[in-house]
Amino acid sequence: MEYFQPEIDRFKGLTIDSEKIIPLDEKEFEERLLESLAQWKASGYRGVWVKVWSKYASLVPICIKVGFDFHHTQPGYVMLCQWLLDKEPNSLPEYANHYIGVAGFVVNDKNQLLVIQEKFKSSEHWKLPGGHADKGENIYETAIRETYEETGVKCEFDSLLAFRHQHNYRYACSDLYFICVLHPLSEEIRSCPREISKCQWMDLDEYINNPHVSDANKFFAESYKKQQANKMCIRPSRIWNYSKTVKNNIYTIQPLDKSM
Amino acid sequence: MEYFQPEIDRFKGLTIDSEKIIPLDEKEFEERLLESLAQWKASGYRGVWVKVWSKYASLVPICIKVGFDFHHTQPGYVMLCQWLLDKEPNSLPEYANHYIGVAGFVVNDKNQLLVIQEKFKSSEHWKLPGGHADKGENIYETAIRETYEETGVKCEFDSLLAFRHQHNYRYACSDLYFICVLHPLSEEIRSCPREISKCQWMDLDEYINNPHVSDANKFFAESYKKQQANKMCIRPSRIWNYSKTVKNNIYTIQPLDKSM
Repeated sequence: MEYFQPEIDRFKGLTIDSEKIIPLDEKEFEERLLESLAQWKASGYRGVWVKVWSKYASLVPICIKVGFDFHHTQPGYVMLCQWLLDKEPNSLPEYANHYIGVAGFVVNDKNQLLVIQEKFKSSEHWKLPGGHADKGENIYETAIRETYEETGVKCEFDSLLAFRHQHNYRYACSDLYFICVLHPLSEEIRSCPREISKCQWMDLDEYINNPHVSDANKFFAESYKKQQANKMCIRPSRIWNYSKTVKNNIYTIQPLDKSM
Repeated sequence: MEYFQPEIDRFKGLTIDSEKIIPLDEKEFEERLLESLAQWKASGYRGVWVKVWSKYASLVPICIKVGFDFHHTQPGYVMLCQWLLDKEPNSLPEYANHYIGVAGFVVNDKNQLLVIQEKFKSSEHWKLPGGHADKGENIYETAIRETYEETGVKCEFDSLLAFRHQHNYRYACSDLYFICVLHPLSEEIRSCPREISKCQWMDLDEYINNPHVSDANKFFAESYKKQQANKMCIRPSRIWNYSKTVKNNIYTIQPLDKSM
């Protein structure tokens, strides 16, 4: 136990950090870990986590050998875990399993939509500018950033139009794809040559009828027209968390004509 | 190259699967990998992925040694990656980084809300039943399942009321928390003794004024009242994916009175 200096959590779990272990060679590490696992099991601990930083990667095969499985990684480390209770099913929480993508639905005052074709495309396809959210980024921030990076058009956020939930997206994870209505602050296109092959403003109804537009994108364009007609949209409100340390965005239906 | 039999993707990336490598001892693996990395770099490949299954875990420290970093894991394997282009920033896509939680906002025809207190709570707090989405589960399915598991009340889905986006949730990942309006099919409570300490129907206005209710939950309750007054809600439509092989749920504003 004293070799590993584990942290104990409120779910009766233990976490070992490879950075904080008393230095051991690999053979000693294996022996001590096996001894400790038996002790922890006897003491009623429910699960053990081991965080292995890159420079201690030689510990990974040992952890696997003594019964750990991979849980998640972040740049620089891999986390392994092992469930200790024989009589209860493994209730260690899964890692994050959703990708977040965001598109900018940018309409100018001539009712034209900003559309792109990607350089690494598999077929001709007029898409919306967008991409994956960076860590910690708000949905509307991703929409504004990606639209600018791909098309050179600076925008401000108006509202959330829709979102799509797609399963089996990548590595058996799911994807949530949010469509943000953005107002362009200028119309000049300077598209990214690395990512984008074509970029233009296209009349909204022409877009809906274009054969190289997906059903989903047509649905978004039709939803946009309905939202404009019904004068309702989805927008975030800033609401305190439980401990009142930070405000989070909560998205609900709001009147369209009230500005943000 | 022939030792590793990599798969080539449309982004000029290579993926090596430890299961498909011609057997090599660890020293040979390191030498061949270093040679191949130099060749791939010279040939203009952009990135290399190595999928290491648990039983080949001894390859992990070698991959780290020759410049790979961890990308993600799933039970049974760890994926490592390395960006090859010196002149361009790393554009290998990040792994999924969002947790999905779902709550059931269950209102009976006496305008009472189904509320719970958790057993492992840190303070007295009337919450909505709910939990994390299982892999591949739709939002409304999670709401119905978790509400039933925690309270014993069977429900059907009405609409999506709101969602909250919270950063720095767990392991520096973010969380999306969706609130689903559900209709109870019965009112008898049989709450889960392992997870729930209290469960009851509470008058909606009493809930909004209760001191043991978070600002977020009050906001959801007030949004529910507005949604009922405005007769608009958020509901999914089933729309084909690009290749028309599967329909996905796209959530947009819909009239409240049309049933699902």
